[in-house]
Amino acid sequence: MMKDLIRLVDKKLDEYLQIEYPEDIFKAMKYTLMLPGKRLRPVMCLETVRMLGGDIEVALPTACAIEMLHVQSLIHDDLPCMDNDDFRRGQPSNHKVFGEANAVLAGDALLTYAPQLIIEKTKGLACETVLKIVHEYTKFAGAYALIAGQVVDIESEGGKLTRPAVETLEFIHMNKTAALFRLPIRCGAIISGNLDKLEELDEFAKKFGLAFQIYDDIMDEISTFEELGKTIGKDKNTGKLTYVSLYGLEEARKKFQLLLEDCYVIVDKYDSKIFREILDKLRDRILGV
Amino acid sequence: MMKDLIRLVDKKLDEYLQIEYPEDIFKAMKYTLMLPGKRLRPVMCLETVRMLGGDIEVALPTACAIEMLHVQSLIHDDLPCMDNDDFRRGQPSNHKVFGEANAVLAGDALLTYAPQLIIEKTKGLACETVLKIVHEYTKFAGAYALIAGQVVDIESEGGKLTRPAVETLEFIHMNKTAALFRLPIRCGAIISGNLDKLEELDEFAKKFGLAFQIYDDIMDEISTFEELGKTIGKDKNTGKLTYVSLYGLEEARKKFQLLLEDCYVIVDKYDSKIFREILDKLRDRILGV
Repeated sequence: MMKDLIRLVDKKLDEYLQIEYPEDIFKAMKYTLMLPGKRLRPVMCLETVRMLGGDIEVALPTACAIEMLHVQSLIHDDLPCMDNDDFRRGQPSNHKVFGEANAVLAGDALLTYAPQLIIEKTKGLACETVLKIVHEYTKFAGAYALIAGQVVDIESEGGKLTRPAVETLEFIHMNKTAALFRLPIRCGAIISGNLDKLEELDEFAKKFGLAFQIYDDIMDEISTFEELGKTIGKDKNTGKLTYVSLYGLEEARKKFQLLLEDCYVIVDKYDSKIFREILDKLRDRILGV
Repeated sequence: MMKDLIRLVDKKLDEYLQIEYPEDIFKAMKYTLMLPGKRLRPVMCLETVRMLGGDIEVALPTACAIEMLHVQSLIHDDLPCMDNDDFRRGQPSNHKVFGEANAVLAGDALLTYAPQLIIEKTKGLACETVLKIVHEYTKFAGAYALIAGQVVDIESEGGKLTRPAVETLEFIHMNKTAALFRLPIRCGAIISGNLDKLEELDEFAKKFGLAFQIYDDIMDEISTFEELGKTIGKDKNTGKLTYVSLYGLEEARKKFQLLLEDCYVIVDKYDSKIFREILDKLRDRILGV
C-alpha cells in the first residue's frame, strides 16, 4: 500500500536527520522536510526497486536523499528572490519561519547531506553501484537538469525567452519537473540491478513528469489553497509560461490524458499496484472518475 | 612554484566548466569562479599529493571541485540576506551582476557540480577511493562543518550565543574556515594513498585554518579595500565575534604566531617549498619581515 511506504519514508527521514548543534540549521532542514507530503518521489524509488525484485531496505537512504533534494528545491524556490511564496504544504514556508539566511543554508545543507546519506547508510551494494547512484544524484540535482529548469522557468516569467515558447516550456518541464521523477526511478532500477529496464522506466518517468507538470498547472487554475497548501493562481498572475497559458485548459487536459495513457501502457507491463494508484489519482482529479 | 599551480588550476577550472544552455546559470557559476584568486585550497590539495609522491594529474578534478565549493560559499555568503557584501575579489559580487535568484542557483549548481566533477573526471583511482573523496566532500560541505560554521557565525553577529564566546569562536573558525583547508589536504593524502599521514596533515590543516582566520580578522582591521578586494572594517561595524574583537589586536597576533610556528614544525617534516611559501606570506604580512 502507498500509505505504508509513505509512513516508512517519513520514519526514515526523521531518523536520518537528527537535530545537532547548531540546532537552528537542523531544525530548518527538518521543518520543511517533515511537513506531511505525498512523498511521491521516494515512494516511486522504493516501488521501482520492489517491482524489479530488489530489496527496498537497501534503497531507503537513496529514496530519502531524493526527497531531501526535492525539499531543498522547494525551500529555495519559495525564497523572496525566487517565487516569493509564503506557504508550502499548507504551512509558512521555510524563510518565513527561520529567516532567509537560514532558508538558503538549510537548502544548501540538504543538497549536500543527501549524497552523504547515500554514501553512509547504503548497505549491501557494490562500491560501483553506490558511486553510480551518487553520480545520478549530482547530474539531476544541478545545472544540467533541476537548476537549468528553474533558471529557464524564472527567465520565462520575465518574458526573457531565448528559444521558442513550446521548446522552452518542454525544457522547463523536462528539467525542473521530470528530472525529479527520472532520478528516483533510474536509481530504483540501478539499485535492483535491472539496468536492462532503465531505458523503458526512464521513458515512463519523463512522460509521468510532463503529465505531473500539466496536472500541477491545471490545479493552479482550478484548485484552492486548502486543497494544495500553497498559493493558488500565481501562474496566471505572474504571466508564467505553462501548458495552460500556452494551450488553454482543454488542450492541456488532452495532452495530460495522452501522456497518462502512455504511462499506463508501461506500468501495465509490471506488477505494481502503487504506480497504478498514483496514475489513477492524478487521472481522477483532472479528468473526473 | 606556487604560480604554476595557480595557473594550472585556473586552466582546469575554465576547462571543466563549459558554458551551455541555459547560459545565464553557467555564466553566473563561472563569473565568481574565474575571478583571479590565490587558489589556496586547490593548490594545497595538489601540493599535498605531490609531496606525498602522488600524481597531481589525478587530483585535479578534486582540487577544482574544492575551489568550486569555496566559491559557492562566497557567493551565498555575499547575498543580501547573509553578509550583504557588494564586492568580492575586487569585483561586484555575484548577485550584483546576475541578480539574487541566479546567485542562489549558481551556488546550488556549484555545490552539486563539484562532486559530479570528481566522479566524472577522476581517472586512475579505485572506486573506493573516489567514493571516499566524495564522502569527505559531503561531510565538510554541509551542516556538519561549513554550513554549521556559517550558521553560528550569523548567530554570533546577532549576539545570539548558546555557548560561551571563546568556544563559539573556535567552533566558527574550525567549521567555517579550517574545514575548507582540511578537505583539500585530507583529499590530497587520500589520493596519494598515504592514509598514515592523514592525521598529522589534518592537524596541520586545523592549525593553518585557525591561523588563516586570525590573519583574515587582523587584515579586516589593518588592510584596505584595494588590497583585499572586499569591504573592509565590516567585522567591527557589525559587532562580529572575531579573534580581534575578543582578544584585541596584539593578542590575536600572538595567537597567530603560535599557530604558525606549529604549522612550520609539521611542514618542515616534508619537502614542500609551496607550503613554506604560503606560511611565509601570511607571516610576513602580519608579523612583518
